[in-house]
Amino acid sequence: MEHLQPLRLAEEGLELLDQRRLPGHETWFCCRDEEEVARAIEDLAVRGAPAIGIAAAYGYYLGCRRLGATAREAAARHPIKGRLAATRPTARNLFWALDRMERVARANATLDPASFLERLRVEAASIHREDIAANRAIGRSGQPLIHDGARVLTHCNAGALATGGYGTALGVLRAAREAGKRVNVIAGETRPLLQGSRLTAWELGREGFPVTVITDGMAAYFMGRREVDVVLVGADRIAANGDTANKIGTYGLALLTAIHGLPFYVAAPISTIDLSMADGSQIAIEQRSAGEVVELAGARLAPEGAGAANPAFDVTPHRYLTAIITEKGVIRPPFAAGLARVAGREEEMCP
Amino acid sequence: MEHLQPLRLAEEGLELLDQRRLPGHETWFCCRDEEEVARAIEDLAVRGAPAIGIAAAYGYYLGCRRLGATAREAAARHPIKGRLAATRPTARNLFWALDRMERVARANATLDPASFLERLRVEAASIHREDIAANRAIGRSGQPLIHDGARVLTHCNAGALATGGYGTALGVLRAAREAGKRVNVIAGETRPLLQGSRLTAWELGREGFPVTVITDGMAAYFMGRREVDVVLVGADRIAANGDTANKIGTYGLALLTAIHGLPFYVAAPISTIDLSMADGSQIAIEQRSAGEVVELAGARLAPEGAGAANPAFDVTPHRYLTAIITEKGVIRPPFAAGLARVAGREEEMCP
Repeated sequence: MEHLQPLRLAEEGLELLDQRRLPGHETWFCCRDEEEVARAIEDLAVRGAPAIGIAAAYGYYLGCRRLGATAREAAARHPIKGRLAATRPTARNLFWALDRMERVARANATLDPASFLERLRVEAASIHREDIAANRAIGRSGQPLIHDGARVLTHCNAGALATGGYGTALGVLRAAREAGKRVNVIAGETRPLLQGSRLTAWELGREGFPVTVITDGMAAYFMGRREVDVVLVGADRIAANGDTANKIGTYGLALLTAIHGLPFYVAAPISTIDLSMADGSQIAIEQRSAGEVVELAGARLAPEGAGAANPAFDVTPHRYLTAIITEKGVIRPPFAAGLARVAGREEEMCP
Repeated sequence: MEHLQPLRLAEEGLELLDQRRLPGHETWFCCRDEEEVARAIEDLAVRGAPAIGIAAAYGYYLGCRRLGATAREAAARHPIKGRLAATRPTARNLFWALDRMERVARANATLDPASFLERLRVEAASIHREDIAANRAIGRSGQPLIHDGARVLTHCNAGALATGGYGTALGVLRAAREAGKRVNVIAGETRPLLQGSRLTAWELGREGFPVTVITDGMAAYFMGRREVDVVLVGADRIAANGDTANKIGTYGLALLTAIHGLPFYVAAPISTIDLSMADGSQIAIEQRSAGEVVELAGARLAPEGAGAANPAFDVTPHRYLTAIITEKGVIRPPFAAGLARVAGREEEMCP
């Protein structure tokens, strides 16, 4: 099985697997500059917090490449970073990756243009490569939490498609399988954009995982019947106290998991942790268009004139999390100390 | 505003508003015998526990009409009742209505064929008329629970479309509005078949209710933000202890409602109450096809080969219900006594 990665840098630009067209069509397209990368992020051609960060890092490099000799001045004035940062507000990794690219740009502002660009290209590729390595480490950290034969309910897609490759939550499941365990996946379809049925079922199905798709409203039914052992999701931003923003529906799922006495795990790289936010109340929740709720594939689901709300994320209070699985190990309550330990150390290590 | 009814008896047969085609197309079609009515129930052209019961009653009459002079013998042998009863297992009202038609058939077996048929037609029309009256009474009982300006979250469609007319849960909202109160409705879309966005938003929108459609996974988000005041749903079968079967997703919604300290109301006519079942564990849950989950409007949502589960209902334990609103008043815990009182009395009154 080929190692699935949703994005790759080519000579012409950043090539993206178009996740809007999965599972029916497996097509790639190329973004040649930061504007095209920004639109791909806004339109969800590439999605998932770590993958957005990596795409933005490549977009930063491509934007500087477009500017050529004036790139160093532009990097100082932030228009490239600003455009990419304005795409989506919730995922921490986007801002983390852009900050990292900007630090490298500043630290290398005296290089000749070609060397400056090469330094940025190497940095973006490092962010990509490190994300895959982090996912592998998350998998090693988390897989002991998944027992042989476990029935794991997941939400949205926190897989290879959402990252540089391998995945966070789904990386834990891959690692459990590589350790010889049988894993049965229950994929919540994740309305409105169906990342569970469209992406998770596709990504895991092609590797032979048994996957059962359910609608989001069925989760409690299967928990109540004791047909779920573990709930495992990714994250878009984790505040200093452990409050976790993730795809809309996660908060309700966490509450239902707690009521049924099941473990609720969040898997995320340290780049998702935001120690600057004391708790989840500070996390900006992206509000997307009503059309995503009341239309599907060009067909109207609701009558003309019906209003709709479309928050893309929600925040799960830390008290509903059993553990947070990172590349530096499994963090258990109280989360504040553990998060400060792993994310503080990481931030010191940044160039 | 014309009084919305989803079914009506005409000379040719039972005319049904085809709920599969709403909200895009408002079309009616005619069922001429019990087989066509049974298929309409199975295919969800008519749905909602009370409406299924009424359709089945008319179907029983139409089946006997088709048989003509041999109808009285057929009624004794049950083939008409059997076909209609085999359509959907969960809604109590279906069996209640068929039992009532059968009792009338037996009690009138000595009449001449024309009088026998006329007696059945009158009985089916009575079931229909009584259901509308029950809904009006449910509305009067329940509307004091809805305060002026209330933001009411509902699930699936427990409206005029699900009943003889006026609706159970939505009848309470209509009655609140008739009493001069402003009511804001949050309609959970109700995957997989989208009765919330397709039917509830259509039915209430045409009467000028402000309706906001949300995906099922958003309910907890809005509860957590204190943007929901009341949760109000219908029911398909209520056991003697108050355990309530309703559209899949209701159980999770009830748990989330309880955690957020909000009231959770069930509105249903007495024909939904099944005193023969001690608790919800005895209620049969209809399992529908995986295609309803992984396909929509002919398009595949999940990859070929992905499995899917599709329980159409779940059971909410009575301890999560704040009250059950019936045409004989609002029943509060302990439910067993109140349900026995209203439903026992009803069964004595039956012919």
